[in-house]
Order: sequence, then C-alpha cells, then structure tokens
Amino acid sequence: MAELTHMIDSEVFLAFSTYATIVVLKMMLMSPMTGYFRITRKAFANQEDTSLASSTEDKKKLVRVDPDVERVRRCHQNDLENIIPFVVIGLLYTLTGPDLSTALLHFRVFVGSRLFHTVAYVLPLPQPSRAVAFLIGLVTTSSMASRVLITALYL
Amino acid sequence: MAELTHMIDSEVFLAFSTYATIVVLKMMLMSPMTGYFRITRKAFANQEDTSLASSTEDKKKLVRVDPDVERVRRCHQNDLENIIPFVVIGLLYTLTGPDLSTALLHFRVFVGSRLFHTVAYVLPLPQPSRAVAFLIGLVTTSSMASRVLITALYL
Amino acid sequence: MAELTHMIDSEVFLAFSTYATIVVLKMMLMSPMTGYFRITRKAFANQEDTSLASSTEDKKKLVRVDPDVERVRRCHQNDLENIIPFVVIGLLYTLTGPDLSTALLHFRVFVGSRLFHTVAYVLPLPQPSRAVAFLIGLVTTSSMASRVLITALYL
Repeated sequence: MAELTHMIDSEVFLAFSTYATIVVLKMMLMSPMTGYFRITRKAFANQEDTSLASSTEDKKKLVRVDPDVERVRRCHQNDLENIIPFVVIGLLYTLTGPDLSTALLHFRVFVGSRLFHTVAYVLPLPQPSRAVAFLIGLVTTSSMASRVLITALYL
Repeated sequence: MAELTHMIDSEVFLAFSTYATIVVLKMMLMSPMTGYFRITRKAFANQEDTSLASSTEDKKKLVRVDPDVERVRRCHQNDLENIIPFVVIGLLYTLTGPDLSTALLHFRVFVGSRLFHTVAYVLPLPQPSRAVAFLIGLVTTSSMASRVLITALYL
Repeated sequence: MAELTHMIDSEVFLAFSTYATIVVLKMMLMSPMTGYFRITRKAFANQEDTSLASSTEDKKKLVRVDPDVERVRRCHQNDLENIIPFVVIGLLYTLTGPDLSTALLHFRVFVGSRLFHTVAYVLPLPQPSRAVAFLIGLVTTSSMASRVLITALYL
C-alpha cells in the first residue's frame, strides 16, 4: 500500500470521498421516496403508521403491499447490495495508491451507472437497460477489488 | 482534509470509533432478536430451521410469516439503510477534521435517535415517534455529508 | 490507537484488506446467483424483466415468488447483516494495532464461517450447521468490537 500520510490528502482520496458521499446520499434518498409512495398510495407496513395518512378510513386496509412501493424498495435493496461493496472496496482501492485518472474513471463510471440504474428501475425503462447498469457497477467494483488483491494480498 | 497522522489519534477519531461500534453492535443485536421471535412465535423462513423449535409438530406449518418477526425484521432493514450510511459518511466526516464538540453532537444525536427508533419500532410507540427518530438520524448524516462535500469536493 | 502511519502499511492492514475484499466479493456473488435462479426458475420480481427469459410465454405468470430464489435472497440478506458489520468493526479493530496472529485468527475464522454459512444455506445442509456458522461470525465480530471499545472508548 502507498504511504497513507501522502494518500489521505491526495486527489484520489478527495475524489473517493466526493463520489462515495454522493452515491451514499443517493441511496439514502430512497427512504424518503419510499415514504412518499407509501403516503400517496396509502400502503403502509405497520398498523401505527396509518395515522400518518388518514384519520377516517378503515385503517386495517391501509396495511397492504403496493406495487409502486415495492418497486422503490427493491431499488433501495439493490443499492444496499451494490453501493456498500463499492464504498468498502473503493476505500481499500484508494489506499493502494492508484493513478488519479484510473481512479476517477472507476468512481465516475460506478456512480453514473447507479444513477442510471435508479432511473431505469423507478420509471421503469425497458430491459436490458437496468441489467446493463447493474452489470457495469458490478464490473467496476470487481476491477477495484482485483487491484486491492493484487497489491495487498496477505492471506 | 486534515492531516491524517494527527486525525487518527485525535479525540474525534476515538469518538467516531466508539459511537460507530456501539450503533453497529445495536444493529447486530437485531439478528438474535429475530431468532428469539422466530423460536417463541414458531415462525421460520426455512424448512430445515423448524427442527430448532420442535420435533413433534407438523413442521410444514412452522414455515410461516409472523407479524412480530416481520416487525423486528423491518426494524433491522431500516437500521441497514441508515446506520451503514452513517458509518461511511461519519468516517469521511471525521477525516475532514471537525471540531470535537460539533462531531460529538452529530455522533450522540445519531446514536441516540437510532436507539430510540428501535424502541419505538419494536414496542411499538405511537407515531410520529418513530418517524421523528428516523428523520433526526437522516438529518444528522446529511449534515455530516454536507461538510464532507464542502471540504473535499473533487469531481 | 496505534500510529496510523505505521499501521496502514502493516501486515495487519494488508491482511484486513485481503480478507475484507474476499468476503465482500463473496457477498457480491449472491446477486448473479439470484439472477441465475430467477432465469432458470423463471421467477421474476418485475414485469419488464420477463423479457430476459421468454418472449412467448404468458409474462404475467413469470412475476412470481420461487422458493429457490427466495433462499438465495435470504442468504444475501444475512450476508448484508453480518459482513458489513465485520468490515466496519474490522477496520476500526485493525487501527487499534492488534497482534498479527490474533488479527489473522479473527479474519480467517470470520471469512471461513461465512463461506460455510453460504454453502449451508444454499444447499441446504441440516441445521444447526447454518446456525453455528452464523453464531461463529457474530462472536468473531463482537470480539473485535470489544477490543475497539476497550482501546478507543471516548463517549
């Protein structure tokens, strides 16, 4: 690994911090989006939540599954399954001291693929647009992981 | 970013390590809690798990969905969606060299809000107690993210 | 905490990077495995995904829940709930400057337990093999967390 004192103030680390924060904020936005769909579709997961939407309707009926809500939730779940590995492996990758241009390429491609993935999932766009966005993200993270293993392998 | 050699032994980093570990341990406790409810409610997700609870009853009937188990699982899922972003952004935030008192305020408010969120979800407490706890956590993490982006922005 | 400039190039940090990358890659493999089962079992989560498997069959019937797909998804979810805490707490643990042999023991036991957990979940093996694998992972992460709290406690 490169010397961390030099790495941590490097442009690679600043770039990682920026892109990781952006993509994690995007992931966090899925929670309010789920809440928005739950309230507009009147489809809640808990009996006590129904008071947020209505004080008159039959509340038992509001605890139900709605296809739009489930779509946003699947998108959120896919984010958890892909963005968290990117952040973990991206941090270790950053500490291996990659070229700035190579690192930026990885970070930009990943974040771009996940932004497009969200649009493709929520609208939804026809397949294979979402599948391609997912695969690009997976390949990007795997590429960073291979550099970490090549640079740091210690079993 | 601040010089890491000074940051990593700083009180801010020690505080981050402490609060991040506490809130991740809290999240991990949801797994045994789910197991506890699965065994006491006799509601399992897998056919092979039914042998943990009973050797005599009709095992097929034990693979079922139970409202108490699902409640704990939704709480666990909400933890994943909120505590992991806090840890990622909190680490980057710590490396920007914030004031100790400001950092402690963020860490304490977040961890407090999540502890209360769990109580509000599992009991459950009437809304909007859980919604408020969730929103306080979201705002705290967003506040740290804004400082990371202001300090480290490199696109 | 130990001096980071010494820690980051240390064998403990290299070992952490290696094992964290391996176990996160294993977790990421659950996504393609889910995709494989969705296509072979013809059980999709979204209407637009059905075009991936068939252009002739009744597509509405392909949006359905399949037990094999759900099994892989539960395994993936369990990974998220356990591997992410390992990575977070393992990083902080690494920065406390543990003995190399103690650290390697923790990393190897955790990664081994999760590899076995996946096999035990997907095949599946009879219980309590999966429960034991899960518990070993939980205890390993808790052991590292206790060292972090003992070394770094700052409330």
